[in-house]
Amino acid sequence: MALVTLADVVAALGGDLHGDPATAISKIGPLEAADSATLSFLANPRYRAQLPVSLAGCVIVAPEFAELAAARGAAIITPDPYLYFARLTQWWVSRTRPVVPASIHPSAVIDASALLAEGVDVGPLAVIEADVMIGAGARIGAHCVLERNAVVGAGSRLAARVTLGHDCRIGERCIVHSGVVIGADGFGFAPTQGRWEKIEQLGAVVIGNDVEIGANTCIDRGALGDTVLEDGVKLDNLIQIGHNVHVGAHTAMAGCAGIAGSATIGAHCTVGGGAIILGHLSLVDHVHVSAATVISRSINKPGQYSGVFPFDENSNWEKNAATLRQLHAMRDRLRALEKKI
Amino acid sequence: MALVTLADVVAALGGDLHGDPATAISKIGPLEAADSATLSFLANPRYRAQLPVSLAGCVIVAPEFAELAAARGAAIITPDPYLYFARLTQWWVSRTRPVVPASIHPSAVIDASALLAEGVDVGPLAVIEADVMIGAGARIGAHCVLERNAVVGAGSRLAARVTLGHDCRIGERCIVHSGVVIGADGFGFAPTQGRWEKIEQLGAVVIGNDVEIGANTCIDRGALGDTVLEDGVKLDNLIQIGHNVHVGAHTAMAGCAGIAGSATIGAHCTVGGGAIILGHLSLVDHVHVSAATVISRSINKPGQYSGVFPFDENSNWEKNAATLRQLHAMRDRLRALEKKI
Amino acid sequence: MALVTLADVVAALGGDLHGDPATAISKIGPLEAADSATLSFLANPRYRAQLPVSLAGCVIVAPEFAELAAARGAAIITPDPYLYFARLTQWWVSRTRPVVPASIHPSAVIDASALLAEGVDVGPLAVIEADVMIGAGARIGAHCVLERNAVVGAGSRLAARVTLGHDCRIGERCIVHSGVVIGADGFGFAPTQGRWEKIEQLGAVVIGNDVEIGANTCIDRGALGDTVLEDGVKLDNLIQIGHNVHVGAHTAMAGCAGIAGSATIGAHCTVGGGAIILGHLSLVDHVHVSAATVISRSINKPGQYSGVFPFDENSNWEKNAATLRQLHAMRDRLRALEKKI
Repeated sequence: MALVTLADVVAALGGDLHGDPATAISKIGPLEAADSATLSFLANPRYRAQLPVSLAGCVIVAPEFAELAAARGAAIITPDPYLYFARLTQWWVSRTRPVVPASIHPSAVIDASALLAEGVDVGPLAVIEADVMIGAGARIGAHCVLERNAVVGAGSRLAARVTLGHDCRIGERCIVHSGVVIGADGFGFAPTQGRWEKIEQLGAVVIGNDVEIGANTCIDRGALGDTVLEDGVKLDNLIQIGHNVHVGAHTAMAGCAGIAGSATIGAHCTVGGGAIILGHLSLVDHVHVSAATVISRSINKPGQYSGVFPFDENSNWEKNAATLRQLHAMRDRLRALEKKI
Repeated sequence: MALVTLADVVAALGGDLHGDPATAISKIGPLEAADSATLSFLANPRYRAQLPVSLAGCVIVAPEFAELAAARGAAIITPDPYLYFARLTQWWVSRTRPVVPASIHPSAVIDASALLAEGVDVGPLAVIEADVMIGAGARIGAHCVLERNAVVGAGSRLAARVTLGHDCRIGERCIVHSGVVIGADGFGFAPTQGRWEKIEQLGAVVIGNDVEIGANTCIDRGALGDTVLEDGVKLDNLIQIGHNVHVGAHTAMAGCAGIAGSATIGAHCTVGGGAIILGHLSLVDHVHVSAATVISRSINKPGQYSGVFPFDENSNWEKNAATLRQLHAMRDRLRALEKKI
Repeated sequence: MALVTLADVVAALGGDLHGDPATAISKIGPLEAADSATLSFLANPRYRAQLPVSLAGCVIVAPEFAELAAARGAAIITPDPYLYFARLTQWWVSRTRPVVPASIHPSAVIDASALLAEGVDVGPLAVIEADVMIGAGARIGAHCVLERNAVVGAGSRLAARVTLGHDCRIGERCIVHSGVVIGADGFGFAPTQGRWEKIEQLGAVVIGNDVEIGANTCIDRGALGDTVLEDGVKLDNLIQIGHNVHVGAHTAMAGCAGIAGSATIGAHCTVGGGAIILGHLSLVDHVHVSAATVISRSINKPGQYSGVFPFDENSNWEKNAATLRQLHAMRDRLRALEKKI
C-alpha cells in the first residue's frame, strides 16, 4: 500500500488535524482492527467505547469527540466523519489503483455506425451494435453487449459482462456492475384460452446521472412508455425492476429487492434487502421500507414501514404459526367473552 | 415511429372499426397519456372513467363499452381488448423493429460438429460446442455459450449472454433473455463428517415449446432425471428453478420466485413475485400462489393461496410482531378465561 | 450410457454386494422409476415402502434394510447409502463425461503477465488480465473474466461466464457456476445533503478450498477488509453475499438467500432458500435457518430458527392478516378481561 502522511490527507480532504502532520499512514481501517499505520474513523457514536483503546495512528471524529480522540493521539476533526471517510476512500483509490489508459481493445466487435466520444475505453470482446453512442471518457468492460441505438453517458463505467438493450440510455457518471441486464423484455402476457399471448415491450429503459447498479440486477424495458431511474439512484445486487417502474431521485435499494411492474417509488426512499413492492403502487418521497417487507398497498405518508414475521426457535415458531391460522376466530372468541362480562 | 392508419390495423388484426379508417396512428399508449395519434385500449373496466376524457385517436374496447367509446371518437370493438392489444404490439414490432438478416458472425467460435439448420443466426463471440443442434431460424445472441450436445428448437431466440448447459434442450419458438443460466448443477450434497460430498448432477434440463425465460433466471439440471418446463411456461427475471423441478404447461411465475428441488408445479398455475415453493412438494393444476408467499406443504385443491405478514408503520408492526411471539400463550389464556366463565 | 457391472461398482466404491456381480447396470435412478438396468438406493427410511416393489437391478441400502433388499434382488450394503450414492455419481461422471484435454483456446485474451500453472485449461474468449495466477489443472470456462491480480487455486473449475474481480482469490478444487460475480463493489454510501457519496470498496473476496458457488450468485468485495468464505462452503444459485460477510467452514445456503453486509455466519450452518440475514449480525456455529426466514438479531445458540407466515387459502389468510394488525390491542383486551375476572 502507498504511504501517505496526515498532511497529505488534510491537504486533499480538509479537516482540522490534531497531531503530527508527518505521521505516515499505509491503510484505512476500522477502529478495532487498527495499528499505528492505520487511519480510522468514528462515525457511529454507538462505537465510542472503541475510541480510547484503538491503536489507530489517527482517527477521524466529529467535534463532540475531539477531546476524547486527542487524549489518545492524532485526530482529524470534521463535521461529518462518515462523509469524510467516503471521500477518503475515493482519494485513496485515485492514488492506489492502476489507471489503464483508455483504448479500444482490438478484439471488441464495434459496428461502424457507433459513435464513441473522446477517451472512451472498450474492453476485450465487447460488442457494440449499430448507432450506439458512448460519451466522453466512458469505460465499457470486457464482454459487454450494447445493443443498437443504446446510449452511455460521459464518464460512466460498465464492468465486465453488462447487457444494455436496444434503445436504452444510461446517464453520466454511472457505475454498472458485472452481470447487469438493462432492457430485457418486461413480463407482459394476455391470457387467452389457457395460454399466454406475448405483449411485445415497446418502451425502453432511461437511467439518469450518478446511478449505481449492482451485480446481476435486472431492469426491464417498459411495455409502452419507459422504465425510469432518476438521478442518483443506487441499486444493490440481484434486484428486479419490472417494466414501467419509476424510481425517484436518490432512492437506494438493498440486495434482492423486487419492484413489480408499473410501481412508482418516490425520491429519497430506501428499500431494504429482499423487500417486495407489488405492481401499480405508488410510494411518496421519503418512504423507508424495512428488509423483507412486502408492500401491498400504496403509501401516501413518509415514514418507516415494516412487515416481517419475527423469527424464533423453530418449536416456538411452529406453535405461534399454527395458532396464527386461528387468529380471526380468537378475535371472535375474545369479543364474545367481552360481551359476556 | 411508423405511421399507420386505422384501416391498416383492422386489416391486420380484425375488429369492428367505428370512425374514419384513414385516421393516422403513430404510437400505442395508455388512455391517460394518449394524444390524437395514439391508439389506446380499455382492458380493465376499473379504468372506464379514463375513457370519456382520453385524447386517444382511437380506443380498443369491448362491446359493452362501444357506446361510451363512440361518444368520444374512433373505436375498435373486439371481444377481448387486452388480447387485441397483445397482438397489436406484435404486429407493431413486426413493422417497426429492424430485422437483421440471419448470418453467422465470423467471431463466433463454432465446433465443426455442430449442426445449424437453415436460417440460423449466430451473434458475435458466441460459443457453440461439439454436437450442438440448432433448429431452423433460431437466433443465438452475442456471447451465448451452448455447451456440447445442447439443442435449440426452430425459431427460438436467445438474447445475449445465455448459457445453455451440456445435453440441455430448448423447444421451438422459445425466448430466453440475457444472463439466463440453463443447466448449472443442481444443489446436491451428502453430509459426511461435517463436510459436504458432491452429488454429481447426471440429468439435464428439458424445455418445451413457446417458453419464455426472463433475465438472469437459473434452471438447474436434474440430479438423476431431468428438470422439465412444459410448453408455454413463462418465467420472469431472477427466478431459481431447482433440480428435478417439473413445471406444468402454461404456468407463469413472476420475478424473484424460487422453486426448490423436486417440486412439481401443475399446469396453468401462477406464482407471484418472490414466492418460495419448498422442495419435494406437489401443486395441482390451477393453483395461484400470491406474491412473497412460502408454500411449505403440497396443495391438492385449485385456488388462491397466500401467506404474507401485512406491512404497517414500523412502530405498529413492532408491537404486533412482539406480541405474535406470545400468540400461543395468548390462546391458552383465552381458553382459561373461557373455562372460567 | 456406459454399461458397468456390479462387480465394477464395488471394486471402485466398496460395499457388501449381495447378488450376481455380473449384473449389468446402465444408469443410476430413483427407486420408483427404476428398471432392471438401474442401480438405485434407499437413503431416507421414509421411502422404505418403495423398496420391495422397485424394479431396480440393484439397490444400495443400509444394513438395517439388508434383509428387505435381499428379498427382492441384488443389493449393496453400506453404512451410509446416501454418501455411497454421492460417490457413485462422481465415479459415474468420471467414466461417462468426455474429458477434453486441457488447452488454452487461441481466442482467449490473456495478459502476458498472467501466470498459468501446468495443465490449466482456458476456454474460448475468456479474458485474463495482468498478474492473474491460475493453479495447476484449473479450468477457466468460456467468456470468464479474471481481473488483474486475481488468483484461482489448483484444480478449481469456473464454468462459462464467471467474473472474478481484481485482487480476489479462489482456493483449490472450487466449482463456480455460470454467471457468478465475485468481487463487485459492496453497497456502501455516505448520505450527504439528500445524495449518496460512494464509499470505494478497498477490500477483496477470499474464498477457501472446496467451495462451490451456484449460478448467478454474487459475492461483493469488502469495504476495508475482505469478504471471506471459508473451506467447504456451498452456495446455491442467486445468492447475495454482502461486503465483509464472513461465512464459516462447511456452511451451506440454498437458492435466493441474502446475507447483508458485515454479517458473520458460523461454521456448519445451513441457510434455507430465500432466507435473509441482516447486516452486522453474528450466528454461532451449527445454526440452521429455515427457508424464507428473516434473521434480525444475532444468534448465540445452535439450533433451528424459523419465521414464516403460514400460507392458507387466500380468504382465510386475509382475515387472519387483517386481525394480526390488531394483535397488540387484542393482548391488551385479554389482559383487561383477565383483571376483571
